[in-house]
Amino acid sequence: MQDLFKRNKGLKTNDNSGLVNKTYGRRINKNGTPNVKHKGVNFLKRYSWYHTMLNLNMFQFIGFFLLFYLFCNIIFASIYYWIGIEYISGISRGSKLHDYVQLFFFSAQTFTTVGYGRITPIGSLASLTATVEAFFGLMIFAIATGLFYGRFSRPRAFLQFSNNALVTPFKDKTAIAFRVSPYKNNTLSNVEATLTAAITFNENGEHKNYFYHLKVETPKLTNLMIDWTVLHEIDENSPFYNIQSHDFKTTNIELIVQIRAFDEVFADDVVQKTSYFRDEFIIGAKFKPMHFPDENREYTIVNLSLINEYEKVDLPKYSTPTS
Amino acid sequence: MQDLFKRNKGLKTNDNSGLVNKTYGRRINKNGTPNVKHKGVNFLKRYSWYHTMLNLNMFQFIGFFLLFYLFCNIIFASIYYWIGIEYISGISRGSKLHDYVQLFFFSAQTFTTVGYGRITPIGSLASLTATVEAFFGLMIFAIATGLFYGRFSRPRAFLQFSNNALVTPFKDKTAIAFRVSPYKNNTLSNVEATLTAAITFNENGEHKNYFYHLKVETPKLTNLMIDWTVLHEIDENSPFYNIQSHDFKTTNIELIVQIRAFDEVFADDVVQKTSYFRDEFIIGAKFKPMHFPDENREYTIVNLSLINEYEKVDLPKYSTPTS
Amino acid sequence: MQDLFKRNKGLKTNDNSGLVNKTYGRRINKNGTPNVKHKGVNFLKRYSWYHTMLNLNMFQFIGFFLLFYLFCNIIFASIYYWIGIEYISGISRGSKLHDYVQLFFFSAQTFTTVGYGRITPIGSLASLTATVEAFFGLMIFAIATGLFYGRFSRPRAFLQFSNNALVTPFKDKTAIAFRVSPYKNNTLSNVEATLTAAITFNENGEHKNYFYHLKVETPKLTNLMIDWTVLHEIDENSPFYNIQSHDFKTTNIELIVQIRAFDEVFADDVVQKTSYFRDEFIIGAKFKPMHFPDENREYTIVNLSLINEYEKVDLPKYSTPTS
Amino acid sequence: MQDLFKRNKGLKTNDNSGLVNKTYGRRINKNGTPNVKHKGVNFLKRYSWYHTMLNLNMFQFIGFFLLFYLFCNIIFASIYYWIGIEYISGISRGSKLHDYVQLFFFSAQTFTTVGYGRITPIGSLASLTATVEAFFGLMIFAIATGLFYGRFSRPRAFLQFSNNALVTPFKDKTAIAFRVSPYKNNTLSNVEATLTAAITFNENGEHKNYFYHLKVETPKLTNLMIDWTVLHEIDENSPFYNIQSHDFKTTNIELIVQIRAFDEVFADDVVQKTSYFRDEFIIGAKFKPMHFPDENREYTIVNLSLINEYEKVDLPKYSTPTS
Repeated sequence: MQDLFKRNKGLKTNDNSGLVNKTYGRRINKNGTPNVKHKGVNFLKRYSWYHTMLNLNMFQFIGFFLLFYLFCNIIFASIYYWIGIEYISGISRGSKLHDYVQLFFFSAQTFTTVGYGRITPIGSLASLTATVEAFFGLMIFAIATGLFYGRFSRPRAFLQFSNNALVTPFKDKTAIAFRVSPYKNNTLSNVEATLTAAITFNENGEHKNYFYHLKVETPKLTNLMIDWTVLHEIDENSPFYNIQSHDFKTTNIELIVQIRAFDEVFADDVVQKTSYFRDEFIIGAKFKPMHFPDENREYTIVNLSLINEYEKVDLPKYSTPTS
Repeated sequence: MQDLFKRNKGLKTNDNSGLVNKTYGRRINKNGTPNVKHKGVNFLKRYSWYHTMLNLNMFQFIGFFLLFYLFCNIIFASIYYWIGIEYISGISRGSKLHDYVQLFFFSAQTFTTVGYGRITPIGSLASLTATVEAFFGLMIFAIATGLFYGRFSRPRAFLQFSNNALVTPFKDKTAIAFRVSPYKNNTLSNVEATLTAAITFNENGEHKNYFYHLKVETPKLTNLMIDWTVLHEIDENSPFYNIQSHDFKTTNIELIVQIRAFDEVFADDVVQKTSYFRDEFIIGAKFKPMHFPDENREYTIVNLSLINEYEKVDLPKYSTPTS
Repeated sequence: MQDLFKRNKGLKTNDNSGLVNKTYGRRINKNGTPNVKHKGVNFLKRYSWYHTMLNLNMFQFIGFFLLFYLFCNIIFASIYYWIGIEYISGISRGSKLHDYVQLFFFSAQTFTTVGYGRITPIGSLASLTATVEAFFGLMIFAIATGLFYGRFSRPRAFLQFSNNALVTPFKDKTAIAFRVSPYKNNTLSNVEATLTAAITFNENGEHKNYFYHLKVETPKLTNLMIDWTVLHEIDENSPFYNIQSHDFKTTNIELIVQIRAFDEVFADDVVQKTSYFRDEFIIGAKFKPMHFPDENREYTIVNLSLINEYEKVDLPKYSTPTS
Repeated sequence: MQDLFKRNKGLKTNDNSGLVNKTYGRRINKNGTPNVKHKGVNFLKRYSWYHTMLNLNMFQFIGFFLLFYLFCNIIFASIYYWIGIEYISGISRGSKLHDYVQLFFFSAQTFTTVGYGRITPIGSLASLTATVEAFFGLMIFAIATGLFYGRFSRPRAFLQFSNNALVTPFKDKTAIAFRVSPYKNNTLSNVEATLTAAITFNENGEHKNYFYHLKVETPKLTNLMIDWTVLHEIDENSPFYNIQSHDFKTTNIELIVQIRAFDEVFADDVVQKTSYFRDEFIIGAKFKPMHFPDENREYTIVNLSLINEYEKVDLPKYSTPTS
């Protein structure tokens, strides 16, 4: 590693990556978020609840609202119970639980503004509570409406990355390669890949992080219709030059990937990130093809189940990482 | 074709088009979507249902929701029926069908939160189901609201392309020309046309695709108010140089068009694509005018019914495609 | 005018303005829309109803929905009447008009999902109609919700232009000047002004339009907080060089203005256009100041009622337009 | 100050800052809004009520709607009262206040479309009013829905700035430094800082403002995950060169900061501004660190409560401001 450090000493580092440099872990998580936690800021300020609601999956999201609905009805049923069940007309009296359950249903009918009317408030306090509850219910559904829209209109790239980055033969040399493919019926154009390498060197017993901007073969595509193998050639200007196999396992080598593209339906730029770290590098392999013409050669099939498929290959002699 | 290939051999190809190159069909469909299908990804992941709902026409969209509404009411009516009709008060009893239909109407009144109240739930299970149904109904209308907004706020260019691309006289030479015009009351500025040619050459018995970026006469307009004839001059740097008439019919020659513009109402960049393939090229023709001053020469009329109108003309001798 | 044409003959024209050039009227209307009409495209396709609804003022918009609501209720009331008033329970019978009016109210209660329940459908056909109407009503309010949001979230620059463009003294020469100011509590940054001149010359008895890109003094501002006087110096490279006063009245001289800025609340670029034509040019005038420090010199007051205020001044001798 | 002015006389000023230059106060408020007021434009035109509603905090916003709801019900209750309580069935008669309160609840049930139906309109005028009220209520909730969405979907940077800008040691010289950190779970990339200095010089007894664009060390970051100390080195090209401590207190020295970044969830550029004025500059201090690796060095902790922490330090001799 010392050796690697010396070799790469002269390379131009990228000092405006803005990445963190004091940990041994990855800087960017696999899903593209930064590996950072905030402290010293109160809970409400720390989280954008809008961003949080957008990141829930559909079941969590519906579940959250269903629980909230249940919770609100329990609260309001309790208020009606406290006011007195005699101020709510139309309830067939029974046990305390039975009465409470009736009030729960009355609350739900008010909250959703169904208002069948078999059960209605008659006293002023009960009527006022119902007045507030109906308003509150409508506000909640107004918020839900906005969140639903925010969820499905959120511009996303819908890109799938290969699980591994390969050290692969390229021309007569080697290259770092990973694969990315759109998997939905969205249309991306003006696509650009930006690659940053983060390497921790042991410098006089102290660990230091260095960041390098990596040169990409064909960094921009006009259209992204099929899978795209993004390649960084390992030449003498690459921080991966003459790197050894085990370095990928033992060192904090991280490849940070950002894809930026224009989505034609959202009419907006979308960004997706990922990173490859330690075990996610495969030395000496190449990707198997994943797109084919159909039988009649009329259209192209992209088979996403093959995106992680590679085969082991020998690397060119003079650039083979040695262990 | 061999000849054509040889002539064009030296031309600079465009290797970052990102277009597919193993089929005989068109790369980009007439409506601008890529001619690609995805496999190996499950149904739910493959389609962005939001993109799908946005691409339905208004009748399909309303129809979809109407059917879904029908479906939900059938489901909930069945649940109420299973719970027992005696737990729903206000129903005039009759045949099984009659009872079921009444429950269907009760369900609809709950789902839409109309809740007239003539028919109301009295048992706990029926009331609970109604509680859930009203919540569910409101959620569905929240989603519908978001989709409606997504549909009509979706930034689109609203451009109409001519059906054909012409090989047309231009100065003393020839040019490839097509026509594009806005057809709605939207306002486009900073418009840019990008043209890519895809040509399949027969190289030693094997078909190979080459992509070329085409130079456009006046590729950018500050305003797009009337029709715009986009021209690519066929000079010695063009992949269409000395091409023969029948090449357009027999070869995989495709002209891929992308128009990008700023829409002032959406305050966003919009993109529209199309492509011209084989029979869609007309050799030796020019477009008839489609915009005129009004009688009093006070404003300009753009007549979109003339967008496809052309007349046959002779091409300049020395650049006439020969058959 | 001939003379003017000859003088300006050598100037570089702007051939990618995309403006229309066969009418005697203005190319861009005062409100920034193009002076163009579409034909040959059917009504539904010609108008983006979304753009149209966004351009209504608030009273027209509410009025439109109120009328539509009235219209729907008349239609549905008629259907209920046709089905038979005996299938709607709870109506106190009276004259035909009285009955119809009751059905109208029942329809409104269904459409808005109020559903008091005093009047309720009892027959299957009436119930089915109510089922459809409640669905339809909710859809309409879903659309209204989207339109409301579209209306007030539409990114707009909220700029006021001076009514007139002045030919004003500038340094030792003259300049074309107009004034623009934000008038709302929005915040604009990275503002850019683009000016195009359109001039019709009489060339051998035929009228021809020429377009010129005009050089602007300080065409970009980092912030637009107060009024901004946009200046185009009339030097030997300007198409207005040595132009005569009456030319502005008699010729199709048009100054087309586009302001583009980044709005920090919408987080989006916004564009606003206008044009100055014929009588809207004032020869020999300068704008009166319209922003002042407050009494304590702590903040700045922008007085928008002064935006059109100018005073007549003499132009520098050697560049005075002559009549 | 005279001296400072003479020294800096030769520096290139920034004449397209668009900032105001006739007051003694700050140009940009601490929260980033311009220190400007509009006059001569009527109330409705002066404020974008949408921008205003978006700038309310959540309690003000909900409170506003609750008050408006109260207000509407009072108005409609009064109308029903004026029409005559005998046209509203289901009300148990009592005192005038009792009757009015009943009508208030009926109004609320109509406005929210709950419509229990115990209280219902029977006369035509009362029914018509209810018809209008239900429509109006739905419209209000449509507007509320849009505003909720507008509020939480509004692209914002969620950046916290340090309260003070420091004159801090940097290499062997001094620099102006402030600190900025994201505090929410949003993700910013392609971040850019733009710094402008505004300085008022006393020139022959008259105060004149000059604006300078400040050179920033590393003005762009690819990612903004942790705190960022933005630095402007005070070298001979800086308007702060050899400036004296008391100048910061007595002169109108203002540092105007704009951060622009791409938010990956909103998929949009966001901008946040602030300014440092007079007492907000600290001479001779440096920021204490505010991010640390966690115990296991697996992720990074950003402690926002430390953002304003600095310690006093000596500045390098030859560039120490003198008093």
